Amino acid sequence: MQHRVVVVGAGFGGLEVVKGLAGAAVSITFIDRRNHHLFQPLLYQVATASLATSEIAWPIRSLVWNRPEVTTILANVTGVDAERRHVLLERGETVPYDSLVLATGARHAYFGHDEWERYALGLKTLEDATTIRRRILVAFECAERETDPEKQAALLTFVIVGAGPTGVELAGTIAELARDTLPRDFRNIDTGRARVVLIEAGPRVLGGFPDDLSEYALRSLRKLGIEVALGRAVSDCTADSVTYGDVRLATKTIIWAAGVRASPAAEWLGAPADKAGRLQVMPDLTVPGHPEIFAVGDTVTVNGPNGKPVPGIAPAAKQEGKHVATTIKARLRGDAGPRPFHYRHQGSLAQIGKRRAVIDFGWTKLRGALAWWLWGIAHIYFLIGSRARLSVAINWLWIHARNQRGARLITQGEARIDAIGVAAGEETAGANGPRK
Amino acid sequence: MQHRVVVVGAGFGGLEVVKGLAGAAVSITFIDRRNHHLFQPLLYQVATASLATSEIAWPIRSLVWNRPEVTTILANVTGVDAERRHVLLERGETVPYDSLVLATGARHAYFGHDEWERYALGLKTLEDATTIRRRILVAFECAERETDPEKQAALLTFVIVGAGPTGVELAGTIAELARDTLPRDFRNIDTGRARVVLIEAGPRVLGGFPDDLSEYALRSLRKLGIEVALGRAVSDCTADSVTYGDVRLATKTIIWAAGVRASPAAEWLGAPADKAGRLQVMPDLTVPGHPEIFAVGDTVTVNGPNGKPVPGIAPAAKQEGKHVATTIKARLRGDAGPRPFHYRHQGSLAQIGKRRAVIDFGWTKLRGALAWWLWGIAHIYFLIGSRARLSVAINWLWIHARNQRGARLITQGEARIDAIGVAAGEETAGANGPRK
Repeated sequence: MQHRVVVVGAGFGGLEVVKGLAGAAVSITFIDRRNHHLFQPLLYQVATASLATSEIAWPIRSLVWNRPEVTTILANVTGVDAERRHVLLERGETVPYDSLVLATGARHAYFGHDEWERYALGLKTLEDATTIRRRILVAFECAERETDPEKQAALLTFVIVGAGPTGVELAGTIAELARDTLPRDFRNIDTGRARVVLIEAGPRVLGGFPDDLSEYALRSLRKLGIEVALGRAVSDCTADSVTYGDVRLATKTIIWAAGVRASPAAEWLGAPADKAGRLQVMPDLTVPGHPEIFAVGDTVTVNGPNGKPVPGIAPAAKQEGKHVATTIKARLRGDAGPRPFHYRHQGSLAQIGKRRAVIDFGWTKLRGALAWWLWGIAHIYFLIGSRARLSVAINWLWIHARNQRGARLITQGEARIDAIGVAAGEETAGANGPRK
Repeated sequence: MQHRVVVVGAGFGGLEVVKGLAGAAVSITFIDRRNHHLFQPLLYQVATASLATSEIAWPIRSLVWNRPEVTTILANVTGVDAERRHVLLERGETVPYDSLVLATGARHAYFGHDEWERYALGLKTLEDATTIRRRILVAFECAERETDPEKQAALLTFVIVGAGPTGVELAGTIAELARDTLPRDFRNIDTGRARVVLIEAGPRVLGGFPDDLSEYALRSLRKLGIEVALGRAVSDCTADSVTYGDVRLATKTIIWAAGVRASPAAEWLGAPADKAGRLQVMPDLTVPGHPEIFAVGDTVTVNGPNGKPVPGIAPAAKQEGKHVATTIKARLRGDAGPRPFHYRHQGSLAQIGKRRAVIDFGWTKLRGALAWWLWGIAHIYFLIGSRARLSVAINWLWIHARNQRGARLITQGEARIDAIGVAAGEETAGANGPRK
């Protein structure tokens, strides 16, 4: 019987494992609870009405159609029986494996304040993105009709918590949406006067980048009119406000880009994990005591060559996935020695509004318009298939040439003023949301 | 003070009224409970994963941004106070008018069987379309994992009730999705063997078209492998079956394209209506006894030049909208005489799968590949803006050249087997759904 590989999770890491095993004498079961692979680095563009959902997501089956040895299963994994070598699915089904790869990712987390989730929206899934899109657009609609100046100001205040790449990119795009795209559409409000507030507990924005790029990003954000509050942690979120340091700011829209919590892969295995729930894997990406179980991507923590943890970005997950595929193939050839994973940092990128970006290649740094062009070309290159590439390129052309954002649709949920905060649709999104 | 026009509903009819009043000395309030104008003729393509939502919907505000005299309000209308000349909004707000245009459309209706709604999905809004898309894709996913042959057969049976243009187009596209796009993606099932059943109570498909085009459509549908049941009305819908004539067919997916019910515009005014709730307007499209109130589109019934009712299609609603704008402008010039509306039938179109369509121009008829090209060109022409045109053209190119459908995303709702039928997401969609 052929060696059975089960890959759980069809994100960047899991997909790379399946790709890397092409041609190997294995049968693969590819499990995800979603039917699509998601290009998460551009998810904030769906949240800000710049791109459509179908431009950054692909049916998993369509990505492996020409691999007859791959069986795709759409299901929730509920655990792993490491002794019997079974993955457990909802409703008691089991999937046996010889090698298992856990690539189950992470969700946003609220540092022990789960009650903030209904007010501070996270951004990890397509539903998260369309929920944020609806909330932003409804806030402008409600402000247009609001006559109480205080309530109107709260509706026109958009707070982003966390100034990593996602927070910075969200803040920049929301500011541009308000200042460039929307003003001509409204009669009673000046959308250009909307406040975009970026709150960061650390001392600088883009904490993972070199100091001078952080400085540049901060200046660029302020040039876009974004208020950046550094060194202040959020201490409370409600339906009407956010509290950070000694400031209580009235707002109807809080977006959470601050913390993540790994999937329960470590719990499934009873394996050691860090504070964020990330599985602590061996240097060869196997789980301690289980050489047949690998884990990759945002659900693990592993140190890079500089002794620092490998960052939670797409290229890292892909390198890990590729490494696991190579290891499995080597073992099938009888080469069973441990093969430590070596992370090569290819670069970190962040866009800060139109025509501004920062790139840290490690050996060199870039910022400004050239970095922005590289950022755009790199992202289009990494999309899957010519249709998505062409389609995203067209949308970006329209945004940049004409300030038109095509996906300004309020769907799935009420557009009523009193429904903001706890809209009907979010209950649903929430039900699909946190993986616990 | 300027003449105040209030237009309720931003479909084809309402939008045409606003367009037609360009340059007139009026102030316009444009009210819709959605933030977008929807190109309904292509909604079935969203439901079948062929197009993205943002390709057939446009923010209403963006369509009237260059018309400073137009104020757009996103709100639910709850009634009309015809005596005081006020439109009533949710939460007790009122909008005064001098001329009122009701273009509030219609919803699907179940001939007194409202309990069928949770099983037989209607198609009028973007949420309806993404719900149907999810249900179709989840049915294939569930069939792939199902081991009981009877249950598998029910999952692979797709029933469409009503063989008007929408029903025919849905049936054709679902058949192509199953036969051309999906087969290579699945391992356990042959999606090409999925049953698509089209049920029609009348004696032929496309009842509004000439006999020979109906015949051609029927042959084309059967060539696509679609089972067409004519002359049999549906007598029951459940979570697991549909009953028509003496047949009880096991199915998990029923799509309702049979009946519509007009918006409650007639109730708001206490005006005469037909059985489907359509307001019976005067020949000049005003409401009896209220020359200052007009009604257009699917919410009215009015006779055409041949004595037959004007059909409920986009071009008819547009002509009516244009006529109302002309009448209001004439009255402002002091020309207050009644101006009867004359409907000119420009053509009815229906697509029956790839490279087959029927067109009835009245003075001539077309069918086959030429009709299909015209159908495609006409629909792209009637989309709004070059971005949407380009984007739809690209998607169609990929579908026709490579059988790839880009929008095969299961979102908003559970993808679990036991959740089909009453998925969480549908509760939400339903809450936004029927306008009562």
